[in-house]
Formats: sequence, C-alpha cells, structure tokens
Amino acid sequence: MENFEFHNPTKIIYGKGEQHKVGERVKKYADKVLLCYGGASIKKSGLYYDVVKSLSDAGVSFTELSGIAPNPRVSLVRKGVEITRRDGIGFILAVGGGSVIDTAKAIGVGFYYDGDVWDIYEKGLKIEKTLPVAAVLTIPAAGSESSNSSVISNEERGMKRGCTNNVTFPVFSIVNPELFFTLPKNQIANGVADMMSHIFERYFTNTRHTDITDGLCEATLRAVIKNAPLVYDDPRNYDAWCEIGFGGTIAHNGLLGMGREQDWACHAMEHELSAMYDIAHGAGLAILTPAWIKYVYKVNPNMFAQFAVNVLGVSGSLRDTDAVICEGLCKLQTFYRRIGLPQTLSEVGIAEDTFETMAKRATHVAYGGLRILGGLKKLYWEDVLEIYKLAK
Amino acid sequence: MENFEFHNPTKIIYGKGEQHKVGERVKKYADKVLLCYGGASIKKSGLYYDVVKSLSDAGVSFTELSGIAPNPRVSLVRKGVEITRRDGIGFILAVGGGSVIDTAKAIGVGFYYDGDVWDIYEKGLKIEKTLPVAAVLTIPAAGSESSNSSVISNEERGMKRGCTNNVTFPVFSIVNPELFFTLPKNQIANGVADMMSHIFERYFTNTRHTDITDGLCEATLRAVIKNAPLVYDDPRNYDAWCEIGFGGTIAHNGLLGMGREQDWACHAMEHELSAMYDIAHGAGLAILTPAWIKYVYKVNPNMFAQFAVNVLGVSGSLRDTDAVICEGLCKLQTFYRRIGLPQTLSEVGIAEDTFETMAKRATHVAYGGLRILGGLKKLYWEDVLEIYKLAK
Repeated sequence: MENFEFHNPTKIIYGKGEQHKVGERVKKYADKVLLCYGGASIKKSGLYYDVVKSLSDAGVSFTELSGIAPNPRVSLVRKGVEITRRDGIGFILAVGGGSVIDTAKAIGVGFYYDGDVWDIYEKGLKIEKTLPVAAVLTIPAAGSESSNSSVISNEERGMKRGCTNNVTFPVFSIVNPELFFTLPKNQIANGVADMMSHIFERYFTNTRHTDITDGLCEATLRAVIKNAPLVYDDPRNYDAWCEIGFGGTIAHNGLLGMGREQDWACHAMEHELSAMYDIAHGAGLAILTPAWIKYVYKVNPNMFAQFAVNVLGVSGSLRDTDAVICEGLCKLQTFYRRIGLPQTLSEVGIAEDTFETMAKRATHVAYGGLRILGGLKKLYWEDVLEIYKLAK
Repeated sequence: MENFEFHNPTKIIYGKGEQHKVGERVKKYADKVLLCYGGASIKKSGLYYDVVKSLSDAGVSFTELSGIAPNPRVSLVRKGVEITRRDGIGFILAVGGGSVIDTAKAIGVGFYYDGDVWDIYEKGLKIEKTLPVAAVLTIPAAGSESSNSSVISNEERGMKRGCTNNVTFPVFSIVNPELFFTLPKNQIANGVADMMSHIFERYFTNTRHTDITDGLCEATLRAVIKNAPLVYDDPRNYDAWCEIGFGGTIAHNGLLGMGREQDWACHAMEHELSAMYDIAHGAGLAILTPAWIKYVYKVNPNMFAQFAVNVLGVSGSLRDTDAVICEGLCKLQTFYRRIGLPQTLSEVGIAEDTFETMAKRATHVAYGGLRILGGLKKLYWEDVLEIYKLAK
C-alpha cells in the first residue's frame, strides 16, 4: 500500500423523496442560485417542478442554465460564468447527471478565475476557490456527485479535458433512486459502463498489499454486475437501483483507489473517441476496456486472473492464468452485450483511418507534447494505436 | 436499502513519516493546543518527541494532558475542559488510541458546554459546537480517528456511555502503520476484535437489498482476519499493518453501515463488562460476539450463513444452515483464540453473580429506565442475561 490522503467532504443524501427538501438545504448557503440542467427530461419527469417548488418555498431565487448535453461544452460553461457574475449568484445547483454536475463545477471555479475558464482544463490549473456546488442526481454514472473532478469539452478545438481540484467536491448531493426510473436503456447501460470503469481504473494496479481496497473494488463490481441487468430489464426496480446508484457514487468518491497506483488509460483513450465522434463516454469505455486488457494483461497476469476469479466467478486452474483471463474477458464482454453495449469501434461508426490521429491526441503528441498514459502499463501513442486496432 | 445520509469530513493522512508534519497541519487551526496522550509508551517509542518537535518547529505552543488510560474517565475530561478554558486553547491534538481520541473529543464538546460534560454522555445531548480535534493514531482499534462518536466512563458511578455528534469528527487523523510496531500483543488482539465488532454491528442486519455494503463489510473482515495473525506474530510487518490500520478506520467511518439497520447490542453489553471490571473492550467483544450469535442467529439464519460462507470460507450444504453457521462460529472462535483472545467471561474473572446486575444496567432497567438493545433481534434484560450465561 502506498501513502495516501483521503478527504471527501461531500454529504450524500440517499433515498426517496429527498428532492423535495433541496430548497431548505440550498438556503443554508445562498438566496440566489444558478439552476443547471439538461433538456426536457426533468420537465417530463416532473423533477424540474419539484425542485423549483422546493427552492421557491425556501425563498431561494434562481437563474436557469439549461441545454447542457453529454460531453458538456465549454461555451455553455462560459455563459454560466457570465450569468453567475451578472446576477450575484452565490450557489450552483446541478439537476442532472455527470455532464450537468461537471458544468456546474466548471462554472463554480470559473467564477473566481480571471482568465478564460478553459485554461483551467487545458493547463490543469490548481484552483483554490469555487462557488459551492450541489447536485440532484438523475443518472448514476459519472460519480461526479461525490468527486473532485470534472470533464469539459472544447467543441471548437475537438478537445476533452478532465480537471481535478479538491475545492470542487459538491457540498451535498441528493441521490434518489426513484429518479432513475425514467432513464432510457442506453443511458442505463452507458452509466453502468462508466461506473465500472471508474473502479477498473483504480483496481488494475501493480501496487501490492492492497487486500482491503482490492476487496472493496471487487465487492462493488460484483454488485453492479449483478444488479445492472435487473434495472436494464425493469427500470422501476428500486432495490436494484439502490445498488447501482450507491455503486456509482462510491466508484468515484476516491476511497476505492486509496494507497494504489491508478491507471486511467482507458479514460484518456476514450476521451478522444467522444471528443471526435461525440459518442457516449460509457459506450466508448465498454469498447476500449476489453481491448486494453488484451493488450496489457501480460504485465501483471495475476492481477487479471484475480479479477476473473473474484469479480467474474471464473473457476479453473490458476496454473494457466491465460485461460482464466481469457474466460474472464469473455464473461466481461458477454455482460456488456447483455446490457446492449457495443464492443467494437466500427459499431459506433469510428473508422480505422482516424485511429492514429486519436492516439496522438490522447498522448498529446498531436500538440507537440508527450503524455504517457497508464499506471499498470505505460502507454505511448503507438500502444494506444494498437489498442484502438484491437477494438476495431 | 434504507434511506441514509453519509457525511464524513475527516481527512485521513495515511503512511510513513506523517507524524513529523503534524505541527504544520495543526498551525492552520490554532497557535495554542492541548496535547493529549496516555502514559509512557509514546515517550519510549519516541513519538512524543517527534510530535513536540513538529509543534515547536511550527510555532505552536501546547499544554499537556497525560495519563489517559483505557476506558477513559470523565474526571480527566473535566480537568481537560478546565485547562482548555484556562489556557485559551484553540485546538486539541490526541496522540494515542481510542481512549485518548475519545477524551479529546469529550473535552472539545465540553469546552462549549455550560454544565458538567458528563451530562452530554448520560443524556445523549446533541451538541453543535466543538473545539477542533485531530489525532495521531497509535493503536488501530476504536476507529475514533474517523468517527463521530466517543465513549467515556464515569468511574464514581461505574457507568460507561457512548455519544454520537457530527461535530466530533476529527478534522484530520494521521495513521502511520510504523507507529504500531511497538504495540504489545494483547493490545494488537484487542484492537482487532474491536474493529471487527464495529463491522459486525453494521453487518448483521435484517435490512434486505444491501449487496454493496454486505460486500464492503465482508471484504474488510476477510482482510482483517487474514492480516491480524501476521501482525500478531510479527509486529513489524508494515504491509500487514497497513491493512489492519485501514480496516480499523473504515470499520467505523460510517460507510459500511449506510442504508442498513444496525445492531450495537454487543457494544452495549460489553460496556457493562468494562465499566464494572475494567477489562479491555476488545476482549469483552471477542467473548460476547460468539455468544450473541448463538443466541440470535435463528432470527435470520441466512444472514449468519452468508457470514460463515463469505467471510469465514465455510463450504457445505446451504440446505443445512445450522451446520454452516455452527462451523462459522467455530472458525470465528478459533480465530480469536489464534490471536490470544479470551472466549469466556470466567477467563477474565467475571463471575456469574454479577450477570443480572450487568444485564439490568445494559438495558437501563437498573436506573428505572428501559433501553431495548439490538437491531437484528430486540434484547431485553432477560435476553442479555442469557447471552452472558452463554459466554460464561
């Protein structure tokens, strides 16, 4: 186990009906808030009206920023920063999934930053101050409701960048699994793939003596894999949603990665897919993860054999780790397919002729820099290209 | 899964050498601190001098409160409150295990309370304000380094009372497994029994649909059971201590019990043992837990069969849960014995003629009240008496 610091100050408010009390909770921070959301779905479900009523009942006034879409754009963040400054906003309430929460976080730090908010993402600036942000979660996926990170796309430049700053932990997040009942199946599946990847990025490591965090990762993965088909088949299954919702939160709240060297290559490789093709992040991760495992597993076969046995229930001779890993990969891909996720880049319309461009962008070679990806195995652009090819 | 709120703001600083930087961390809060510790052990190990040097280097002055013993006493808490008020103290630094940290927490809330600090514990008062408290942990056991609870004994009245207040989460805790190298074997074992019980109290439940928290509890228990004999046999095994130390922290930081009805009968029953006989809390828990399981398991046999299978590795026909549970109990008791823990009350000198008094105290019947213990099975004084008898 490596030295670590763990600090996650977000209050998670979990359960039925909690959205009706959001106004009182917000009121403790500010009287004027920016209400961020996506499109029509929260109006169709009625959540929008519940939140607005709760804010009004608590005497909180608000300005709206709507139209936030998947792979959220910096242009809308810039607009949000303008509004918060113009209207004397003291708090940002995100009602939505990761894109909405990430936009709220970006506006929060942008509010106090003198330059263009994109600098923070492109340069990875350390930020010390933010407007407080809270969330009412509508999609369990990104884990942004309890994380210190956010990801924003620059649509003009075809770039997608993540940023981690401890000030961006939401002050509170409401997770009511009932709010997930109306999610379309593809969003359910993409969310599941995303939260699983958040665990994988922490789980697959060369760090040794990690019994507890290994076990926490494996337990959460098993629960997600068990319950995902249940909510996929019956999106009104509250009990199963409780597991998926909680899984999505703890997958990315930091605890599961403590004391471990982490990887994050799949996320970096995926960001190029969704930056260039605007495909769903979760779908991209579901495609790339098995390809990444195929490419890297020989660096640490016992890690991947442990995954196959402890997470996917593979039995067999541990003297033949290749066979155990192969069976595990097959089970993982069968699971992804079971919930309708693509398993090849061609299925989502990504052609081989852009692989090299994406590989060079992911490793920053395209920008004259060099970012080596991965923790378990260091990846250069040539490696990334091979992984894209394995996923074609 | 039940509705829940999870909020744990304690920063955990984990790893080698961190005690040397404690002064800088304290300095952010105050210039004058109360330094709480137990006896000679931190002077013998040199930790005392490391902490004092770090405080001095950071320009932090301190008053000492030493002599804090297991089952910490309210008389010393009262003295600490007097000192903090007299000396204009702004921060309390606990260097020790649960007793020292609990004393620091009690002084912290006592500082702002007008009456006798014991009221807070006896009446279970909700407290809104505390002096900030931090810890340098020397014994992984109580989990107080990342919890909102503390337990204090009233020596005049032979009472032991716990208190939970969200303001009492330490602001930070330093957990350096190297500091555990000098622990005597009985303290190692008592600490392990204590942290395991913190998980048991959350794990054994009638709440259904708790896949993730079941798995988190089981993973942590397995890791503790695996690594405890390693540190017991070789107290300088850093890697094994990492697991035990981290296990003790997450056992009691709240996460593992989220959304579950919890039990806590064993803790309540044990508090009477250590209040009347001043035996080690962990030893008392190791004695009572198997007896409690024998007495209550028929209420929810599948819960205890799951424990036997998933935690203790029992195999066998699940059509005969009694046999599976019996085998699990045997393995649990073998484990406790393996690390030198007692398994009967008579071994620690507790005679049957005080069982009824303790049972009536544990359930407050002795004080003219009625406290029903337990979550999985409700226990009255007569039940508690039977459990003491099973443990005799």
